[in-house]
Amino acid sequence: MDERRLENLIKERNYITIKKELDKLNPVDVAELLEPLDISTSLLIYRMLAKDLAVEVFSNFSYEKQRDIIDLITDRELKEIIEELYFDDMIDMIEEMPANVVKKILAHAREEERSLINQFLRYPPDSAGSIMTIEYVDLKKEMTVRDALKHIKETGLDKETVYTCYVTDKNRKLEGIVSLRKLVISDEEETIEEIMDTDVIYVHTHDHQESVAGVFVRYGFLALPVVDKEDRLTGIITVDDIMDVIEQEATEDFQKMAAMAPSEEAYLDTGVFTLARHRLPWLLVLMISATFTGRIMLKFESLLSSVVILSAFIPMLMDTGGNSGNQSSTLIIRGLATGELRTSDWYKVLWKELRISIIVGVCLSLVNLLRLIVIEKVSLTIAVIIFLTTIVTVIFAKLVGGLLPIAAKRIGLDPAIMAGPLITTIVDALSLIVYFTIASALLGL
Amino acid sequence: MDERRLENLIKERNYITIKKELDKLNPVDVAELLEPLDISTSLLIYRMLAKDLAVEVFSNFSYEKQRDIIDLITDRELKEIIEELYFDDMIDMIEEMPANVVKKILAHAREEERSLINQFLRYPPDSAGSIMTIEYVDLKKEMTVRDALKHIKETGLDKETVYTCYVTDKNRKLEGIVSLRKLVISDEEETIEEIMDTDVIYVHTHDHQESVAGVFVRYGFLALPVVDKEDRLTGIITVDDIMDVIEQEATEDFQKMAAMAPSEEAYLDTGVFTLARHRLPWLLVLMISATFTGRIMLKFESLLSSVVILSAFIPMLMDTGGNSGNQSSTLIIRGLATGELRTSDWYKVLWKELRISIIVGVCLSLVNLLRLIVIEKVSLTIAVIIFLTTIVTVIFAKLVGGLLPIAAKRIGLDPAIMAGPLITTIVDALSLIVYFTIASALLGL
Repeated sequence: MDERRLENLIKERNYITIKKELDKLNPVDVAELLEPLDISTSLLIYRMLAKDLAVEVFSNFSYEKQRDIIDLITDRELKEIIEELYFDDMIDMIEEMPANVVKKILAHAREEERSLINQFLRYPPDSAGSIMTIEYVDLKKEMTVRDALKHIKETGLDKETVYTCYVTDKNRKLEGIVSLRKLVISDEEETIEEIMDTDVIYVHTHDHQESVAGVFVRYGFLALPVVDKEDRLTGIITVDDIMDVIEQEATEDFQKMAAMAPSEEAYLDTGVFTLARHRLPWLLVLMISATFTGRIMLKFESLLSSVVILSAFIPMLMDTGGNSGNQSSTLIIRGLATGELRTSDWYKVLWKELRISIIVGVCLSLVNLLRLIVIEKVSLTIAVIIFLTTIVTVIFAKLVGGLLPIAAKRIGLDPAIMAGPLITTIVDALSLIVYFTIASALLGL
Repeated sequence: MDERRLENLIKERNYITIKKELDKLNPVDVAELLEPLDISTSLLIYRMLAKDLAVEVFSNFSYEKQRDIIDLITDRELKEIIEELYFDDMIDMIEEMPANVVKKILAHAREEERSLINQFLRYPPDSAGSIMTIEYVDLKKEMTVRDALKHIKETGLDKETVYTCYVTDKNRKLEGIVSLRKLVISDEEETIEEIMDTDVIYVHTHDHQESVAGVFVRYGFLALPVVDKEDRLTGIITVDDIMDVIEQEATEDFQKMAAMAPSEEAYLDTGVFTLARHRLPWLLVLMISATFTGRIMLKFESLLSSVVILSAFIPMLMDTGGNSGNQSSTLIIRGLATGELRTSDWYKVLWKELRISIIVGVCLSLVNLLRLIVIEKVSLTIAVIIFLTTIVTVIFAKLVGGLLPIAAKRIGLDPAIMAGPLITTIVDALSLIVYFTIASALLGL
């Protein structure tokens, strides 16, 4: 089934075939097929879907589509959706809905769910609490494996995952975990206490989602328990949500390093004014700070007007410096983000970047020297000035690029935001100062 | 247990406590604790670990540590490791080992495993085949749920995952999948054929790991079957390996966009010469191409020498153009990488970037105009030249930044490599041409 086939079937009003074919598909694919259809057609088809598929399709719709559907369906249908939706999907949806839709949803939630929803909405955005779900399998350590499997059989369908089960005491304190694999492999008479793993790795409700993702990547877990300040189990996070977090955090770093306000929204779904607002502040800051570079040039106005050829190499020097610095800062910012580098590694970075920058700087400068003399046929003095400036600029650029992100992190700032956009401006100014100083000295001006 | 406590226990030769405490930890943590120890001490402790923990610890060691251990252990110990290691971990290890160690490993592998190893080593790097494993649960559709659960109980311990089971016919063709959740919830007398899911989503052995990761993110799967050209099941990929792929692919894009050769190796583990070699080529290309910008400046030498103040704004214009272009290209490159954007969206990008760039360009230029007149007190003509150049440059930069990555992808080139580093150079040249053209016109020179 593809878009065109669906269109034709709709034209033929062949809804029986549509239902039959859609019911076999993955809900992600069904949602994608229905998303572009007008609301009445998509609602018509949506209502025909098998019930358990329907809710999964609903949770894969865009928020706009979800809102339109909620506006049109009956109270009974809304109640069904709310009962069947996974809790984390419901929270995500509520966060994006306008107030009247939220009110409608809350009116159909059960009493105890309503207070849970309110509690979950209070977790800071991007915290573990904001991405966790409450549908986990809860076991007691006195249970036998047989009891546990029976419990899973009875309740498992409504759980986000049944592959890791959580053992809690009567105060909801987490005592251990046991995997479904262990349960299936173990003897039915054993107790949960005998087979559970008590060295449980968990996160707290207020931990940042980026550090939670780090735990998943490090250990390769499928799910991770989330506890509150009193170490009571309050929810779990599953790996499918974490894959989104990993992509999203990388995207945010890309945006920050390119001097933009980070945003989770998809490019095509974001309005022009919002996008402009994300981009303007840093462009303004960087434009203003580039005037310092201009000031430096004005200070050497007499030098520039007497040896005009000097200005022809400014773009090359600035670009080479900026590119050299960017290479280093990108590696360091990324290393800090994935946890591969720590701020305490700063002296290793310093030593490494120093050696790399000497190798790179000398190679670049030699090639350039040859080119200047053989092809551009500039005077030897000018060639030597460019030669020396390139080496010093590359070294400066790589040291600043390597150390600025670490310094930013050390004082509690975001390396991607602080170091990314600023490197070019800092290196520009540095390279010009080096250039004019060397030129003044060698030209005797 | 932390590093310091382990050091003290080693000094006290209290190996009983060490074993007792390590046996309770996650293998990832044990490997990290043993990694920095000298080889004889770590081997001593490694040999004391519980057997099933030991192999998992081994697979979490660095390749250097694995090599050192293989060099020292007995043939019997090596055989045990090889038998217990997951197949994908073994392949990863073999790929990194020197020839003599590979020979030693192959000598201890069973005949049929040896030929499989050779087959797996031939998959292209970064292909689905290169990251898949062969330890999956294989079911037949005639089995009952009870048979299947018994089969899992007997063989499940050695499987990379038991949570998705694969149903194949006698020619190894994939007929369906069934989750352990479904098995546990279903009636024991049902057959696999009745409960299996036949709309199976799979990848091919030669698919790129980035597109495999895309499938995982899209559907939230825990595992994905890999089939060969004849649609026979040859292996599976599990989500824990995919998390690494997602991080690694993002890291590669960061590196490419910062004008470096992409590398999987950790920064601190990479030699200075290797790092320099990754960085030099693009720096050279960009340095040489920046000379075109210099040529443009030389062409307007007379203009520059008669109105020297013009050169003072060159850094600001170049930086603003470069930053504006980078913002757009970063969003588009990332959107193409995560699959959120397609090349067929080019006209949407064009229209969006055009509107954004007009808003951003006008805002920036107005602020700048005010600053130039009020603070810098430049002449009105110069201020107007800068005003107009900034608007046109921002528009050019954002259109080039938005469309170049799409054009690169369209003709089969990597958007991150082709567009990232080149944007600045292209925009530099464009902004200077605009600047001098406007200046010549308005100054009548």
